[in-house]
Amino acid sequence: MTQTPRQACIVAVGSEVVQGYVVNTNAAWLAQELAGLGWDVVRHEAVTDREADITHAVKAALEAGLLVVVCGGIGPTVDDRTRQAAAAALGLPLRLDHDDLARLQERYSAAGRRFPEGSEIQCMRPEGARLVPNAFGTASCFLARHANSGLCVLPGVPRELKGIWAEEMRAALVEEFGVQAPLFARELKCFGLPESDLNNRVRHLLEDPRAEGAILVDDAVIRLRWRAAAQDQAAADQVLEPLVAEAAQLLGDLVIGTGDVTLEQVTVQALRERGLRVALAESCTGGMVAHLLTNVPGSSDVLLESCVVYANEAKQRRLGVKPETLAGQGAVSEAAVLEMLQGLNATGAQLRLAVSGIAGPGGGTPEKPVGTVWLAAGMGDTARAWRLRVPGDRELVKWRSARAALNTLRLAALHNRLPEHPAQWFTPPV
Amino acid sequence: MTQTPRQACIVAVGSEVVQGYVVNTNAAWLAQELAGLGWDVVRHEAVTDREADITHAVKAALEAGLLVVVCGGIGPTVDDRTRQAAAAALGLPLRLDHDDLARLQERYSAAGRRFPEGSEIQCMRPEGARLVPNAFGTASCFLARHANSGLCVLPGVPRELKGIWAEEMRAALVEEFGVQAPLFARELKCFGLPESDLNNRVRHLLEDPRAEGAILVDDAVIRLRWRAAAQDQAAADQVLEPLVAEAAQLLGDLVIGTGDVTLEQVTVQALRERGLRVALAESCTGGMVAHLLTNVPGSSDVLLESCVVYANEAKQRRLGVKPETLAGQGAVSEAAVLEMLQGLNATGAQLRLAVSGIAGPGGGTPEKPVGTVWLAAGMGDTARAWRLRVPGDRELVKWRSARAALNTLRLAALHNRLPEHPAQWFTPPV
Repeated sequence: MTQTPRQACIVAVGSEVVQGYVVNTNAAWLAQELAGLGWDVVRHEAVTDREADITHAVKAALEAGLLVVVCGGIGPTVDDRTRQAAAAALGLPLRLDHDDLARLQERYSAAGRRFPEGSEIQCMRPEGARLVPNAFGTASCFLARHANSGLCVLPGVPRELKGIWAEEMRAALVEEFGVQAPLFARELKCFGLPESDLNNRVRHLLEDPRAEGAILVDDAVIRLRWRAAAQDQAAADQVLEPLVAEAAQLLGDLVIGTGDVTLEQVTVQALRERGLRVALAESCTGGMVAHLLTNVPGSSDVLLESCVVYANEAKQRRLGVKPETLAGQGAVSEAAVLEMLQGLNATGAQLRLAVSGIAGPGGGTPEKPVGTVWLAAGMGDTARAWRLRVPGDRELVKWRSARAALNTLRLAALHNRLPEHPAQWFTPPV
Repeated sequence: MTQTPRQACIVAVGSEVVQGYVVNTNAAWLAQELAGLGWDVVRHEAVTDREADITHAVKAALEAGLLVVVCGGIGPTVDDRTRQAAAAALGLPLRLDHDDLARLQERYSAAGRRFPEGSEIQCMRPEGARLVPNAFGTASCFLARHANSGLCVLPGVPRELKGIWAEEMRAALVEEFGVQAPLFARELKCFGLPESDLNNRVRHLLEDPRAEGAILVDDAVIRLRWRAAAQDQAAADQVLEPLVAEAAQLLGDLVIGTGDVTLEQVTVQALRERGLRVALAESCTGGMVAHLLTNVPGSSDVLLESCVVYANEAKQRRLGVKPETLAGQGAVSEAAVLEMLQGLNATGAQLRLAVSGIAGPGGGTPEKPVGTVWLAAGMGDTARAWRLRVPGDRELVKWRSARAALNTLRLAALHNRLPEHPAQWFTPPV
């Protein structure tokens, strides 16, 4: 028995994908799921709805000895040709599963609906293929063995695909092929340093020959990932855990968490653990900081309010910012952002944060170009303000400023005091 | 000269894409760009960084007579093998462009930086291929003819890819191959009806034989698209415009706009045209309505403020919601949402909107399950409140409630009065 992962190919079926009207997100999702079962995905394809195109792609992948995972084209319309193509690629006839059809007809009659003409096709599969029931839609899925590999057919709608995978297909695949030399991954998510600086600090760990290291950047959030093939999780952890632990120690509070966490999730978690409640005053972020925090279940324990004071008159009326401050120093200034912060004192929140900046495209000046952002935070009796230089267009300036705000809250909760700086990632003032 | 569009294939190079750590968004973007030049994209592939994998994919596509557009793998590191693979697939040697190298070295020395070892590879391309300069990075691109088709090589970083495409590659492709029978598309974006209802209203137009009709759904926002191959825009419009115009007439204010617009963009535009300013009170949407509006440049003309009153104490202090209302009818009730709306009267905004609901996962009851949302709007002296049933998990409930809010603002601005309902898409109360 070898440790080499078996190989797989993902085929997305759909002219809307090929013509670029829908982004193929299924392939990335499936690739990670398959890796967890020991299948190394070596290729993605997207093909049109034409039966010949589907057949050609599936046949070529089967001939290359790959497990072929097809998604899309299994519905009841004339455009749905994946079943026919799969049968042709396998060189087998398509058979109707009468029991499966009876169950589908029963579902329609239980819902008081007429069985739509032509829907029988959804209960057909290549001879000998295994039925994989679909509780998330009307089109049954299937799994067929072929030589040492096989063909696995799933729906194209992401929600449906993920549901059937978790409920049925994953277990069916394990039953047919077992789990062999799966690739186990460990990730650290980091925020606050540019990629090159982070890379330099942990380069020796990323290049460690015992695992496959990678650095993946999604804007300022950086993922450090190590993968190793092993018989089981415990064996993989013997290799991966020391690497992750050493990196975590080297990076300190630049690490926001392990695995698939977001900055807003760890921020809400840190605030809840410390029992801190937060009040916000947002100008340039336009409500985005509150929006991100409230995406997290349980955020009602930590977020009191956010005053999105977009217009100057709102800054005055809601938060008591002085007209002379706005006229003299402007809404994007240390004085304005500190007055916004003071306007939150009455909320009684232990942690307060105010942000005002120039998101663009208009509004920039030589002294305060687009991307100039003032951030202020207050905790107990202390307050601090920072001028940040945030590169990017309007949406990026909002997004990055919101992340700087979240990171300030996270660090304050973590250390129970205001941080020195929201994040070194933002160029310090010149 | 035939009207049949020529065919193309997009090959993404990168193990991070194949293993699912990065979603391949380049392929969808490039497919639409290529269609505009008369190339019908018939296949996408994603392959690993291995030279043999890249060579195999490129060679197979060239042999099938496709224009092959490759992105990724052209940087200076040992992992970047696209140049070598392209040369192998074409059966041509790789040559260094000494002029291009001199220019790259000049760029480094102008920036006061040492020329990194091994970076010469970025100035190499298959013999006879055309240089396509890259102002967005250090790796030069190229375009090679092959039989009746060709090979076009671009970077994998989306921002860089889009930049070079617009600045250089698009024009180079047109110079080499001309623009032939391009596919012209027209789109209507709609919001407010379920897909099946919308489909039934315009089915005859989608099935019109003169164009290729499609209905594409992104949650509740629905795109109706018609494509036709034609010599030029004017010829295409003779077919497409009557279809789009008839659909627009049948659908009325369900149409939010043509082409690539968002609900927030058309909402800001409608408010600006009507000279209306808006004040918001958000509970369950947590700032998302303000966040979406402030993504649009110019939103500072229309948005005064949003009070994100997440906690009950904030609803009382900021907006004067009565404690007895919260205790008696709850924060998610007609009374509470109308009091939140009243709390916005002092802002002087002509249009006011308040939203409060149960986003979940916790907080639901048999009478008010997760997804129960109250929305209230005020315009001048009139006010209205609606109970919506919004299906989905936490993020979907937020997202859909925010869209209901935006659509209410859009319809109010469009008709200069409050609408009957935020959107029929939301199941009316039972």
